[in-house]
Amino acid sequence: MGILVVGSVAFDSVETPFGKVEEVLGGSGTYFSTSSSFFTEVKLVAVVGDDFPSEHLEFLRARKIDLSGLQTAPGRTFRWKGQYGFDLNEAHTLDTQLNVFATFRPRLPAGFEEAEIVFLANIDPELQLEVLQQVRRPQLVACDTMNFWIEGKREALLKTLRHVDILLINEGEARQLAGEANLVKAARVILGMGPKTLVIKRGEYGVLMFTAHAIFSAPAYPLEAVFDPTGAGDTFAGGFMGYLAASRDYSEAAMRKAIVFGSVMASFTVEDFSLRRLQSVVYSEIEDRYRKFQALTEFAGLD
Amino acid sequence: MGILVVGSVAFDSVETPFGKVEEVLGGSGTYFSTSSSFFTEVKLVAVVGDDFPSEHLEFLRARKIDLSGLQTAPGRTFRWKGQYGFDLNEAHTLDTQLNVFATFRPRLPAGFEEAEIVFLANIDPELQLEVLQQVRRPQLVACDTMNFWIEGKREALLKTLRHVDILLINEGEARQLAGEANLVKAARVILGMGPKTLVIKRGEYGVLMFTAHAIFSAPAYPLEAVFDPTGAGDTFAGGFMGYLAASRDYSEAAMRKAIVFGSVMASFTVEDFSLRRLQSVVYSEIEDRYRKFQALTEFAGLD
Repeated sequence: MGILVVGSVAFDSVETPFGKVEEVLGGSGTYFSTSSSFFTEVKLVAVVGDDFPSEHLEFLRARKIDLSGLQTAPGRTFRWKGQYGFDLNEAHTLDTQLNVFATFRPRLPAGFEEAEIVFLANIDPELQLEVLQQVRRPQLVACDTMNFWIEGKREALLKTLRHVDILLINEGEARQLAGEANLVKAARVILGMGPKTLVIKRGEYGVLMFTAHAIFSAPAYPLEAVFDPTGAGDTFAGGFMGYLAASRDYSEAAMRKAIVFGSVMASFTVEDFSLRRLQSVVYSEIEDRYRKFQALTEFAGLD
Repeated sequence: MGILVVGSVAFDSVETPFGKVEEVLGGSGTYFSTSSSFFTEVKLVAVVGDDFPSEHLEFLRARKIDLSGLQTAPGRTFRWKGQYGFDLNEAHTLDTQLNVFATFRPRLPAGFEEAEIVFLANIDPELQLEVLQQVRRPQLVACDTMNFWIEGKREALLKTLRHVDILLINEGEARQLAGEANLVKAARVILGMGPKTLVIKRGEYGVLMFTAHAIFSAPAYPLEAVFDPTGAGDTFAGGFMGYLAASRDYSEAAMRKAIVFGSVMASFTVEDFSLRRLQSVVYSEIEDRYRKFQALTEFAGLD
């Protein structure tokens, strides 16, 4: 099985009330593939510049991520600079340098087109569709997007969504995409656009999953030390899709477990800058925190 | 068993994006006692003016609420006027007329001082303590408060909190009371002020309960029609305390169930203006929605 992911590999510079880092490893593809690598095999399709250091490549390879779809282009790697205030739910972008990402055309190496599970991280919806059309018979397709594409490339996004099984977006983006303030109504509108499952990410308030017939609510793990929320959403998606790929079960019950695994992975990412915590975490800690999510949410039924 | 509650009885004028009402029945004591009356006996200590209509008294009596502690004073009943935008989590107060509430001194009628369970709704912490001191041997004391008292009467509030078992407050108020942005750390600070249990209300994001050893997270019920959030917090408290009183069990497991019953009651209140939905709801609907909370939150354990 395994997952094919297309996304960004980047250098992030981030400032939060708790510290500051310059040019650390980041990017949606990086967070996603690292997170999902705890559950399944991952093939990463992305681009870096010729300034990308071998130590980062070695880290990704050590996580058994297939990098044969990672292009190296002449020029500088994608860079993002952001800041968070005490409200860690909202990132303020200070600078975005697309660099080699500006002319990126995803190409799938031999074998990648047989992928059964595809995750289209938050990139131009036209590129998302371009990747998807290169995959022969995808069994499960999920994607992320953002306000920038909802506003600027709505038609292309709607076209991509018709081929997507699961859409993962933020709460504000769900309202914006649907043009509806009430989330339950917004979810119904979005489920009419193509996806059979909608996963709404609410930062420290957790996740809501909508299908045609059910809603599932999962909290975020209450942490004493939230250092940096950068990458939390992509880490969530990586744990979510990684568990689904490993279980080969796409039922609603499996998706609920997958949401909790995604939330577990995201709870580690925010404990430190960049991918530091994902570099140290071991699988027994993941299972331990899964059990803590159970303890956090369980209550008895009626007598 | 049963509960003694001291709080406000008021006329509310409310405008939300979905409609507008003038001088409808409201007040923390009203919402709390109506909500808890579905589970247990309630004794209400409050004051109204001589303009308070008998139909409202009849409604409260029909809910078997003991009104012998409800004083009628010469003058006008307490009035509150507020507005909500599309972000229904935040009320904008347009006008507050204390009227007879300005000179209210709570007096407990004979028998009330034997109450075993006490809820001190959001009023001046000096009045909260005055009521509490009139109760002989309270077994369980809970209270609510707000930013106005946290800023303006901090010493009196801290004195009251030393006698309180359960504090129920909003997320922003918890941060303000503790002087700490991180909720987990804020909770630890507040648990050091006296309460053994802290219930943090987060509006549409649900509730977090903290004790010395555990955290419980419950979502709010995702509704398609949220008309008016006025009274949701007091309705929550009424369901929460009402269930505890009825079960005579104050264990952590019971408190988790109580949180869900409180959330169920609040989910009805916000479906219409004033207490309209609480006037029509029947107990089988409460149980039915409790089961829906289970369906909303359940997920399987590790294999």
